[in-house]
Amino acid sequence: MKHFFSVADVDNLPQLVDEALQLKNNPFASEYLGKRKTLGLVFLNPSLRTRLSTQKAAIHLGMDVMVINMDKEGWALETKDGVVMNGSTVEHIREAAAVMGQYCDILGLRSFPKLQDREEDYSEDLFQKFIRFCKVPVISLESATRHPLQSLTDLITIRECWSEITRPPKVVLAWAPHVKALPQAVPNSFSEWMCRAQVEGMVDFVIAHPQGYALAEEFTRGAAVTHSLEEGIADADFVYVKNWSAYEDYGKIHSVDDRWMIDQNKLTLTNDAKVMHCLPVRRDVELASEVLDGPNALVIQEAGNRVWAAQAVLKRMLEQLAVG
Amino acid sequence: MKHFFSVADVDNLPQLVDEALQLKNNPFASEYLGKRKTLGLVFLNPSLRTRLSTQKAAIHLGMDVMVINMDKEGWALETKDGVVMNGSTVEHIREAAAVMGQYCDILGLRSFPKLQDREEDYSEDLFQKFIRFCKVPVISLESATRHPLQSLTDLITIRECWSEITRPPKVVLAWAPHVKALPQAVPNSFSEWMCRAQVEGMVDFVIAHPQGYALAEEFTRGAAVTHSLEEGIADADFVYVKNWSAYEDYGKIHSVDDRWMIDQNKLTLTNDAKVMHCLPVRRDVELASEVLDGPNALVIQEAGNRVWAAQAVLKRMLEQLAVG
Amino acid sequence: MKHFFSVADVDNLPQLVDEALQLKNNPFASEYLGKRKTLGLVFLNPSLRTRLSTQKAAIHLGMDVMVINMDKEGWALETKDGVVMNGSTVEHIREAAAVMGQYCDILGLRSFPKLQDREEDYSEDLFQKFIRFCKVPVISLESATRHPLQSLTDLITIRECWSEITRPPKVVLAWAPHVKALPQAVPNSFSEWMCRAQVEGMVDFVIAHPQGYALAEEFTRGAAVTHSLEEGIADADFVYVKNWSAYEDYGKIHSVDDRWMIDQNKLTLTNDAKVMHCLPVRRDVELASEVLDGPNALVIQEAGNRVWAAQAVLKRMLEQLAVG
Repeated sequence: MKHFFSVADVDNLPQLVDEALQLKNNPFASEYLGKRKTLGLVFLNPSLRTRLSTQKAAIHLGMDVMVINMDKEGWALETKDGVVMNGSTVEHIREAAAVMGQYCDILGLRSFPKLQDREEDYSEDLFQKFIRFCKVPVISLESATRHPLQSLTDLITIRECWSEITRPPKVVLAWAPHVKALPQAVPNSFSEWMCRAQVEGMVDFVIAHPQGYALAEEFTRGAAVTHSLEEGIADADFVYVKNWSAYEDYGKIHSVDDRWMIDQNKLTLTNDAKVMHCLPVRRDVELASEVLDGPNALVIQEAGNRVWAAQAVLKRMLEQLAVG
Repeated sequence: MKHFFSVADVDNLPQLVDEALQLKNNPFASEYLGKRKTLGLVFLNPSLRTRLSTQKAAIHLGMDVMVINMDKEGWALETKDGVVMNGSTVEHIREAAAVMGQYCDILGLRSFPKLQDREEDYSEDLFQKFIRFCKVPVISLESATRHPLQSLTDLITIRECWSEITRPPKVVLAWAPHVKALPQAVPNSFSEWMCRAQVEGMVDFVIAHPQGYALAEEFTRGAAVTHSLEEGIADADFVYVKNWSAYEDYGKIHSVDDRWMIDQNKLTLTNDAKVMHCLPVRRDVELASEVLDGPNALVIQEAGNRVWAAQAVLKRMLEQLAVG
Repeated sequence: MKHFFSVADVDNLPQLVDEALQLKNNPFASEYLGKRKTLGLVFLNPSLRTRLSTQKAAIHLGMDVMVINMDKEGWALETKDGVVMNGSTVEHIREAAAVMGQYCDILGLRSFPKLQDREEDYSEDLFQKFIRFCKVPVISLESATRHPLQSLTDLITIRECWSEITRPPKVVLAWAPHVKALPQAVPNSFSEWMCRAQVEGMVDFVIAHPQGYALAEEFTRGAAVTHSLEEGIADADFVYVKNWSAYEDYGKIHSVDDRWMIDQNKLTLTNDAKVMHCLPVRRDVELASEVLDGPNALVIQEAGNRVWAAQAVLKRMLEQLAVG
């Protein structure tokens, strides 16, 4: 694995998931693999779970970690070419990425979309330029349109919690209300990974969202889509709760209909479904407290599994570096 | 030791102090005890000494350290239950604490009081919830009402600097002026630890403060209290200088009477007392420069001893983890 | 080497440069030298390259690193003596430096000039007080008037890229336009190091800048100075591009004359010169994109070499600590 940006970077998905679960059983099994290797984690936006879990994964592998918070450290990057830099940007991504590549063997990058210009966000221009100029393997810590470490984590968690062998679980991505306009990165990515997992026979995948919240087609091919929450979650084994802003009317909030919030009552429609969320979650806005505090919630276990997703990916990258 | 929040968490106080001084003589004696263990240091408020000394202590013990600055990283936590989270808080402490507990074997937490609602601050609600939800041992890096690592440090420093065996030293907590309203955490905690040390025969303890600055009774039981600085410091062996805002008229400043500032002249009333302060100190407001720069000041040695206090506590926690 | 503040701290300059290049070939050759030693990196101003490269160098030497961002952590230091601290500064450098010296074996400090009071900036008062009070070896991560790790890096890079043995290369420091008033630290330091290197027969050194941009004489003794860019860069082997604000009319911008920007056309006047810059660089303001993206630019290699400069210096300091 050279880079980790989308599910397309994974050759064998079931194998990667299994390896992550093996690492969970034996975190320090490869603690010398990353010896003398440095991971740089570059944040253009804040992070809690992603930073800590990736740092922990790197520690398990014996790597040194350097964290670079460029949002707070006042380092506005220029990404466009041909710009006379006489404004507020202090450094071009060409130099910034190349320099960080000089100090690190693997780089992670987090960069949120601005939610203003869909074409710009969905071009993933910043991320692709970072990859191009840093010249070392890059692991996405969430980009404008994807959050692959989260999605791998989610698949790991589903695999871990599903023991029936006669059928794959029904997994539902359920839109939920929120007070702010959020990116589509998590739902795009979750959908992309679940569609691939469905091809592998690992899940049956359904998306439920109100009118106006359709995700970009490139992420949802193969998914069943419904505009009825009740229909979507009927007999579900896993409900993945997540808000996102509109893709079509880009970055807008069309509905905050609280009938889309999952509560204990709605869970009765499901097959005693496990409830997932990438966190942070707005209690009693996105998801009812009674669910979060009840036995169906997987959110803490899911957050814990972020370590094994990151570790499985870093391990692959280190193995790749070792063979050159 | 499961958690370290107050002196009540210490079984044998003289033993813990002695162990800290042994660690000072041999910092790396237990450098494998913390191998493969991760310490997460969570700061909801700024820190200099506490972060560095605790990080250094963890390094001595072979631990990995992850620092989490939640104040600057824009992560406003909700602590109340039953709140519909449609406002400015982005994550509930139930999730935030639980998630951090997934990534760390021991967590440290710093959280200052708001000094607006005494009942809320003195409930230590946030800290107790953090302990409850993270499910790993927690070490206080200063909470709303206590700063136990500082107080342990202070006792270590007193022990280190007192060689008379015929009597315990007279230790005086002396209120000092300041320009800002400060928490009572340091004086509460110092008083709580000195009262306990007095029971153990390690010190004789006196508190001197102006009218209106009485600390909460729970911290001062057994201490002699005077409203005369001169009376308080008479024949003192150690003077512990510290400002605090009023407990009764909560968070208010009643007096900035500069006659309460310790200077060289006032020291003549003492038994050539050593002068302590937790730092940072406002020179010539809280304490005269001539004292800070003179031979009686212990403040730098005291700050250095923060390492051994933290290390003694972390060592106990790691030993506890090892036996399960 | 006790401290690293200017070229005067280096006994044998060619030897230090050679050692740095040897470390580049074998980064982990001394990985036990720094075992159980802690490097504290204190930033009163932001840093990207300096922090990462110094941290990486310390990792190569087996040191533990603690980063202390005092700019963002709201810790305003008082540096003047005799001040009654009833204003906005929360801690005096006497205490702050001394305390950090308690926790670290070597300290690095970055502190920019305010560009308001030349005498104050050029006194290097803050830096010298930091050295005086912390009582451990100090490595400059850029001070008010110098950036020695950058200058050592630059000399390393020149040595690395120059293979002619019949003559030393012609190295030109060329002033360039910028939109902001920048310190003189980088050009001062570069000039100071090149003047010394010239004495050692390692370079021929020329400075080209517009009228009104003369650097302080203490840094430029021995350098040829011209006010014509064309004259300066004629037959140059290395052109070091850098903006600075005026020293005489202190901190002011007199000219933003874009005829001083190096572009491909100006390079034709040189001996196919390699182009250097300390970064970050404002593209098409200080330096043309066509040069930065072309084969003559050394800027990324130069940034990479920051590691070896820092490592050579830290290695000397650690060796000094070992002999006591």
